[in-house]
Amino acid sequence: MISEKMKVFVEGSSIIRAMFEEGKKMAAIYGADKVYDFSLGNPNVPAPEEVNKAIKDIVDNEDSVYVHGYMSNSGYEDVRAAIAGSLNRRFDTNFNESNIVMTVGAAGGLNVILKSILNPGDEVIAFAPFFGEYRSYAGNYDGKLVVVSPDTKEFQLNLEELSEKITTKTKAVIVNNPNNPSGVVYSEETIKKLAEVLREKEKELGIEIFLISDEPYRELVYDGVEVPYLTKYYHNTVVGYSYSKSLSLPGERIGYLVIPDEADDAEQLKAAANVATRILGFVNAPSLMQRVVAKCVDTEVNVEPYNKNRELLYGSLKEYGFECIKPQGAFYMFVKTPGDEMEFVAAAKKHNILVVPGKSFACEGYVRIAYCVSYDTIKNSLPGFKELAKEFGLLK
Amino acid sequence: MISEKMKVFVEGSSIIRAMFEEGKKMAAIYGADKVYDFSLGNPNVPAPEEVNKAIKDIVDNEDSVYVHGYMSNSGYEDVRAAIAGSLNRRFDTNFNESNIVMTVGAAGGLNVILKSILNPGDEVIAFAPFFGEYRSYAGNYDGKLVVVSPDTKEFQLNLEELSEKITTKTKAVIVNNPNNPSGVVYSEETIKKLAEVLREKEKELGIEIFLISDEPYRELVYDGVEVPYLTKYYHNTVVGYSYSKSLSLPGERIGYLVIPDEADDAEQLKAAANVATRILGFVNAPSLMQRVVAKCVDTEVNVEPYNKNRELLYGSLKEYGFECIKPQGAFYMFVKTPGDEMEFVAAAKKHNILVVPGKSFACEGYVRIAYCVSYDTIKNSLPGFKELAKEFGLLK
Repeated sequence: MISEKMKVFVEGSSIIRAMFEEGKKMAAIYGADKVYDFSLGNPNVPAPEEVNKAIKDIVDNEDSVYVHGYMSNSGYEDVRAAIAGSLNRRFDTNFNESNIVMTVGAAGGLNVILKSILNPGDEVIAFAPFFGEYRSYAGNYDGKLVVVSPDTKEFQLNLEELSEKITTKTKAVIVNNPNNPSGVVYSEETIKKLAEVLREKEKELGIEIFLISDEPYRELVYDGVEVPYLTKYYHNTVVGYSYSKSLSLPGERIGYLVIPDEADDAEQLKAAANVATRILGFVNAPSLMQRVVAKCVDTEVNVEPYNKNRELLYGSLKEYGFECIKPQGAFYMFVKTPGDEMEFVAAAKKHNILVVPGKSFACEGYVRIAYCVSYDTIKNSLPGFKELAKEFGLLK
Repeated sequence: MISEKMKVFVEGSSIIRAMFEEGKKMAAIYGADKVYDFSLGNPNVPAPEEVNKAIKDIVDNEDSVYVHGYMSNSGYEDVRAAIAGSLNRRFDTNFNESNIVMTVGAAGGLNVILKSILNPGDEVIAFAPFFGEYRSYAGNYDGKLVVVSPDTKEFQLNLEELSEKITTKTKAVIVNNPNNPSGVVYSEETIKKLAEVLREKEKELGIEIFLISDEPYRELVYDGVEVPYLTKYYHNTVVGYSYSKSLSLPGERIGYLVIPDEADDAEQLKAAANVATRILGFVNAPSLMQRVVAKCVDTEVNVEPYNKNRELLYGSLKEYGFECIKPQGAFYMFVKTPGDEMEFVAAAKKHNILVVPGKSFACEGYVRIAYCVSYDTIKNSLPGFKELAKEFGLLK
């Protein structure tokens, strides 16, 4: 009854989402405080006060027909102008409302841009480890995901392999900075080299290559690290952003695409993104939330709770003998598993600890720990991690 | 730079949406009260008070992390249970939360179900006149839209032609009840006959055919007309609903799918819809709005303003000599054009009247008038319509 493609998807459905459902069931059995669910990037830090204040202000003071009504498929012009202005102030860019397309989260944005550019058989390159849904998103438009193998030393970008994998079929390269699942931030040096490779390949092969920068974690950085704004380094860059993590609004599905004027055929691309938003059935990003984020464009993101979690979890895991790069962004830790990752995932579950296997990110031998949970969850999970370290021979 | 498919879409972009943009520009030039924009189904009636009250109640009293966070891709279970309960009370059905998938409006829902069921080359049958986006939605999944020609006498369903057009490639039949653009409500008699044709064809050809019922206008009916609930007449029915029109929330993108247990492979279909919601990039229907509609499931829809508009517009157009079926649902009137429809559309624009040509609905020789505008807009547009009647020889 269901389509052949979907049969495959339903069978191999997202491990992350399956764990989220599992976690809810376990919480019902053992009590929520006895289950350490590190499976999903669902922020535990509440939305800043400004968000709920903005919601109430808008509902009380703005015209209901306008606030809840249709607008241009790309979004309200004043909202897009407010976002462009904020980006310009923060990153010394030069955008206006025409460069912004409001989207149903970053996932919606990525689908809109891929729908806009992919012909069947086109290739989209992603660097492992990467958010596994990229494969579905490219597949939605009959694109093929090509994977560059992970640099398991530094978790930066394997640019030599990228260069080898770019062909005349390459239409786009996706980077996710800060990275889910590694928590690594790609340095300006890495980005400059990446841009150089893309420019050279565009010239050599006579093609246009999009750099799609998926940036929902842009503001979640620690240790004073800077995240380069990619449109400044490479002309054919499209940025996908979401307020899911920065404003803790993942359920609201609100984000945007940036399509710079420097992109080839920028006007046509903007028009395509506008149309794709409509025909994919998004129609537009949720209207009230558009108006809310416009009022919160310069709201400070409080990363301190995540930072505290990061320090405790990282310090403890290292102490127990686990191997892991210290993340400088997002709220994920990507930990090397002593032994088979699926055995580790199963063993962790016996301690009521839910983590996601690395194969979900095309990088086996690791697990992802989403530390966007309460400090107590981290603290109370530590004995379990310690036991795991013993079971797998890291500790005596 | 953009894909070949999108080039076609961008060039032939929705006339309705182009008019909406045009209307905004004209309003800026002539003043909003001098432009009679009947192009878009954007309700002029504000959302019921309960909606904004519910928004504030939730924001004030519910946990922010829960309200704005991720939930199961199919939506909050309590929200889905509330909707199932309301449907059962109103239509004597027997749904529970597992039968409901929350969606990003009806457009999102239609994409989710088509993604779930279509193999490339599968055919989806629609009855002209129909909402033109159906063609894009089927095309998104490499399906082919097959059109049953309009019954221009009554604007009911041409079931003889349907029967001829069903083949082994047919996967789904879409009906839109009440209909956009005709405003006609398909009677129980029509629906019974439709179900009979589908059952016979399923048996004859040994296939399964989905009946997709697109019902955003279900509550917008006049003259005491009843809209049959289609799951009660045919087993493989999937209902797509949206609160866009009933609660005047088109910008918020909130709706749901109903997948009844009577459908073949219902469990697999529910699972597919859940996965499709995620991989298409919707992820989930906007979270706050899910909780809002759950609080408003039994809110009475005030159709009186539309009814007043309907009576004035219909009465006046008939008086001027126009031909039109009196709509009993939705907020559209589908008027036969005296002469070429594009000439009529252009002539109307000279009177600052924006209407949509019938070819957008696969039914030439008509224009659609969306009367979800203010009463004054209708009243003030009448001299323009009268002039048009004169110009086209209907009046002396």
